[in-house]
Amino acid sequence: MTQGRLITFEGVDGCGKTTQLRLVSERCDALGIPFLATRQPGGTPLGLKIREILLPPTPVDAHSALSYESLPVPTPVAEALLFAADRAQHVETVIRPALAAGKLVLCDRYTDSTIAYQGYGRGRDIKVIEQLVAIATDGLKPDATLLFDLPVAESQNRLQQSRQGSTGTPDRLDVEPLEFHQAVRDGFLKLAAAEPKRFHLLDARSEIKQLHQEVWNLLDRILGGKPSFSV
Amino acid sequence: MTQGRLITFEGVDGCGKTTQLRLVSERCDALGIPFLATRQPGGTPLGLKIREILLPPTPVDAHSALSYESLPVPTPVAEALLFAADRAQHVETVIRPALAAGKLVLCDRYTDSTIAYQGYGRGRDIKVIEQLVAIATDGLKPDATLLFDLPVAESQNRLQQSRQGSTGTPDRLDVEPLEFHQAVRDGFLKLAAAEPKRFHLLDARSEIKQLHQEVWNLLDRILGGKPSFSV
Repeated sequence: MTQGRLITFEGVDGCGKTTQLRLVSERCDALGIPFLATRQPGGTPLGLKIREILLPPTPVDAHSALSYESLPVPTPVAEALLFAADRAQHVETVIRPALAAGKLVLCDRYTDSTIAYQGYGRGRDIKVIEQLVAIATDGLKPDATLLFDLPVAESQNRLQQSRQGSTGTPDRLDVEPLEFHQAVRDGFLKLAAAEPKRFHLLDARSEIKQLHQEVWNLLDRILGGKPSFSV
Repeated sequence: MTQGRLITFEGVDGCGKTTQLRLVSERCDALGIPFLATRQPGGTPLGLKIREILLPPTPVDAHSALSYESLPVPTPVAEALLFAADRAQHVETVIRPALAAGKLVLCDRYTDSTIAYQGYGRGRDIKVIEQLVAIATDGLKPDATLLFDLPVAESQNRLQQSRQGSTGTPDRLDVEPLEFHQAVRDGFLKLAAAEPKRFHLLDARSEIKQLHQEVWNLLDRILGGKPSFSV
């Protein structure tokens, strides 16, 4: 059994990485390539319990709004540790077994998102976040990372459009100022510049199908010759 | 307002540290010395939520025993991160405010217990545990640590006696082999040897009142001249 490969899909909200991951999954499925599509936060049973602490359900009326406020508020460090616990469980119980089974693992967000959002976006101590990332993953790094880069103005436009089609409940990131989103995007680009071998930059402004073909060609090149990825 | 002092009480189960902390608290109370008696795990609202994940309530019948088994089991790393989140919340929301208010903070177990039990006892990576301890406490070290040292045979005797007087439900540590308890004790002694200025070794075999007087004299010497501790 060949060891699988871990490919992470990264970028700001609205960059289209989730759509691209789905398109790759569908193609793998059609071709009979053994793969696992997953995401972080990972939705393990433990992770769901942790999420209940971190992200209480959106209140639907005044009464639940009250109970929302009575929930304990984690300090930034406690929050980072809880996120890391969620990741540790996901890596150990979901990603590693799939890699051991020789699968191509496609992960929607991974450690770079944590460093970009928590470190560059929220200005928390990047050294601490990197330590937590290393502990939580036990050093498991992606074989390749696809960064779907998008200018902030464009990502904001896309998010606004998708909100107009939804129930209109803003999530936490919607209330962040533009500077935050700019810092996150710049953070991703810094991470990519620091590890040019692992990172593959894609222009997320491209049309969906064209972008998918670029992604597929890239994966073919990255994984070419591997038994688990032959097109 | 003078900055308070953090004194931690450490040692193996059955060493009497909790009794000694209570006796110091009572004496501080009687003398009007501003203090806070606390413990780790800390029992903050967030900490209680985390405990619900880590330590499900003891089953009282077959039905709850079933639900016990269906709870998610954290990996060792996820568990260590959850414990660290609990500690981060306790340090930031309980200990630091008390220190800032000039109080003498008496803490039953702190970071040395984590290193002794998780690292030396369970053989987990001590470097990782030390990193987590540093992150969770944001570097807050005790001003002094009282180590109540007790030979393993003696601590086992004491625990057995106290169990005979109780409902008899064994806790997790009861099922550990003697080697585990020996490794924990040795771990504490190694930590003490590495930081002789911070650690103060006490012979936990001493009679309770005599030991209390030793503790009190020691605190008087350590804290002597501080406005918050004058006897």
